[in-house]
Amino acid sequence: MMTMTEKQAIKGELLTLETMSTVEISTILEEAAQFAQGVQWRPNKELFIANLFFEPSTRTRYSFEVAEKMLGLHVLSFSEESSSVQKGESLLDTVKTFEAIGANALVIRHPENDYFQEIRERLSIPIINAGDGSGHHPTQSLLDLLTIQQEFSSFSGLNVVIVGDLRHSRVARSNAEVLTRLGAKVKIAGPKEWMKGFDTAYQHIPLDDALNESDVVMLLRIQHERHEGSMEWSKEIYHQQYGLTIEREKRMKKEAIILHPAPVNRGVELASELVDCERSRIFKQMKNGVAVRRAVVKRALSN
Amino acid sequence: MMTMTEKQAIKGELLTLETMSTVEISTILEEAAQFAQGVQWRPNKELFIANLFFEPSTRTRYSFEVAEKMLGLHVLSFSEESSSVQKGESLLDTVKTFEAIGANALVIRHPENDYFQEIRERLSIPIINAGDGSGHHPTQSLLDLLTIQQEFSSFSGLNVVIVGDLRHSRVARSNAEVLTRLGAKVKIAGPKEWMKGFDTAYQHIPLDDALNESDVVMLLRIQHERHEGSMEWSKEIYHQQYGLTIEREKRMKKEAIILHPAPVNRGVELASELVDCERSRIFKQMKNGVAVRRAVVKRALSN
Amino acid sequence: MMTMTEKQAIKGELLTLETMSTVEISTILEEAAQFAQGVQWRPNKELFIANLFFEPSTRTRYSFEVAEKMLGLHVLSFSEESSSVQKGESLLDTVKTFEAIGANALVIRHPENDYFQEIRERLSIPIINAGDGSGHHPTQSLLDLLTIQQEFSSFSGLNVVIVGDLRHSRVARSNAEVLTRLGAKVKIAGPKEWMKGFDTAYQHIPLDDALNESDVVMLLRIQHERHEGSMEWSKEIYHQQYGLTIEREKRMKKEAIILHPAPVNRGVELASELVDCERSRIFKQMKNGVAVRRAVVKRALSN
Repeated sequence: MMTMTEKQAIKGELLTLETMSTVEISTILEEAAQFAQGVQWRPNKELFIANLFFEPSTRTRYSFEVAEKMLGLHVLSFSEESSSVQKGESLLDTVKTFEAIGANALVIRHPENDYFQEIRERLSIPIINAGDGSGHHPTQSLLDLLTIQQEFSSFSGLNVVIVGDLRHSRVARSNAEVLTRLGAKVKIAGPKEWMKGFDTAYQHIPLDDALNESDVVMLLRIQHERHEGSMEWSKEIYHQQYGLTIEREKRMKKEAIILHPAPVNRGVELASELVDCERSRIFKQMKNGVAVRRAVVKRALSN
Repeated sequence: MMTMTEKQAIKGELLTLETMSTVEISTILEEAAQFAQGVQWRPNKELFIANLFFEPSTRTRYSFEVAEKMLGLHVLSFSEESSSVQKGESLLDTVKTFEAIGANALVIRHPENDYFQEIRERLSIPIINAGDGSGHHPTQSLLDLLTIQQEFSSFSGLNVVIVGDLRHSRVARSNAEVLTRLGAKVKIAGPKEWMKGFDTAYQHIPLDDALNESDVVMLLRIQHERHEGSMEWSKEIYHQQYGLTIEREKRMKKEAIILHPAPVNRGVELASELVDCERSRIFKQMKNGVAVRRAVVKRALSN
Repeated sequence: MMTMTEKQAIKGELLTLETMSTVEISTILEEAAQFAQGVQWRPNKELFIANLFFEPSTRTRYSFEVAEKMLGLHVLSFSEESSSVQKGESLLDTVKTFEAIGANALVIRHPENDYFQEIRERLSIPIINAGDGSGHHPTQSLLDLLTIQQEFSSFSGLNVVIVGDLRHSRVARSNAEVLTRLGAKVKIAGPKEWMKGFDTAYQHIPLDDALNESDVVMLLRIQHERHEGSMEWSKEIYHQQYGLTIEREKRMKKEAIILHPAPVNRGVELASELVDCERSRIFKQMKNGVAVRRAVVKRALSN
């Protein structure tokens, strides 16, 4: 692990937040906050970045693209469908190709957990992980953190409840870990079956109890595409038992906010009417995603 | 209707031509004519535009892209295939995402008629409709108008015949309506079954009769993909009965021109040899499409 | 043939190397060598180029895109999947569309051999052939030549062996022809069945014999997607009989180099460990691909 952290520092890689120091996380958040406030930065020469998406994505993909273009970069957008991956080309050979033709950094989303482990040692350019299987999604975590930080003066002592499909989430684990490291008190809520791997480290409480005390209600998307069988509950029953209903929203603390990584399953994780409500920071999160990615890409290119 | 027109004016939206005043249509055509003559314009800051295509398109899509890049915009190109729409994300949530990450305007093509009605009130950025189902295709109508205007000094008194698959066309209705408003005399020709909804307002005449008097022969593409069953005629029989054959072209008026929105079904709507003939303005229409879209995008960004 | 050569010269087309004089080939290589050494060039106005890929591609597609963006061009990226080709539009009508909307040159990959013959006379902008069926792939040939030229002072007297699936290769024929014209001695190795059409013009020798004398070992990709039935050999047996094994590499001449157009079938055409070995120029070839394409695109735009 030490080696990976060290290599990240050298190369400007961003693979996972768990291997990153709180100092480094804070540095990225500070830079992102400045970008969010209108600060401009561009590299002093023409650079190329390649976005390699081996899974569908809207938010992450275009948010990176906006960030990159705001930094004045040339962007290469790669999707699996129309590539030589169709001819059986390996991930390693694909990324080496982009390195060879002049990419200065790679943004990669891939369905396999830890896909980066087998390729990072073979590249001389940094990888920014845009999501690996059900493993990590560090820029999503960072934008969640930035959104919380903008709202409250500090993470210290904040009550955060993470709700829903933790087991299949790319961000639950790292958000819980990093928030705890930064001083927040993290609890978890939702179906017991979806808490596996979390319930020893974090207190599992009923959502109704969490509402009274939480400053941040962090809802997770139900990853229908990652559930092998069909879900045990109908959407309606899930919503009533574990979702943020209109009624539950009313019992939240005065200044408390709602986060959700989107896309939202409206009427499931939260009532459709709440997506746009006053407490919701869902579109703020997306906006912050651009600022965070500018900071992360700048970091990659500066190393 | 009044509200929609009003909102268009405020936000620079372009949804349908039917709800737009002739003054406003003329203003767009004038601006487009200037772009076609080499006038340059760029906004005074960096702006983003997102092209969201939920249906295949070549002409419209790349014509918008050329127009946008000539205006110096950053272009985000979205196709349904590699997006979160695959995860069941709604149109509303997709467009709200692009708004949140910084798009200053949206160009949308969508298979559903009037898709924009449910989303326009929820957005603070303008939508440019690049085609909705069999509903409207205002930039196609505008480029048809520009092409006619370049040819004849005025619309007033011009004889226009619209030929073919009117019922499934995105442009027949608005072209007929707007041309009439601008002073042209519009008639329709083609199979009786395809005239429904038009034959009360416009005179249905045999193509052979129309040729003697028409200044503009506006052919429509047979939308094979919109016909539920197979077509009643073979291509050859359709061409002989309702198509612009080589023989029919010879009987057109001296200065009369041929329009077709393309892609052409060669040998069906018109003889393959006529695509490039002296009267054909088909490639001129495409060229004009870029000028019209520059005008429309400029209008969206200026509001 | 004369006409084609002549027309190439006028329009800056690049269709095949066979129809190009050695003088012209040398001119392109010289320009490419300068780009590879850091020379910059940009046209003095804004230009558009369209990359039309009717087949999957990573290397060629993105290599062209990097080259074009380094030249400051606006790039239109077209893939068959999301286009009007889905509505049955012909290649001719597709390319005429891109010409009409303002493309100054077209880069085309298409599965049909000699696809360009039916369209080039109908266009006023140059086509750069990025691969036609199993016919030609001139920019791949040029980058192979550039890589050889960088290594050895001259082509004259060089021993080159082309190994493998010659019959299905896009580059074997033109590489063999042009290298011979430039003064190299070309031999061929691999399964007898795959040498058809080559074995009358070039000496077919066992790979083991070729290793002793070859300065360049040019491996070809087995085009699994072009073999109708399954291959006669297992991958392991092919590798042992006809592939560049670790053992064989050791018997190569001191300064000899390995070329492969990639994507490599690791463990088949060559041992996986050799992809990155000291003799391998595989990633150098990709890097050179950008320089060659800058030269070729510059040539197209300058005519």
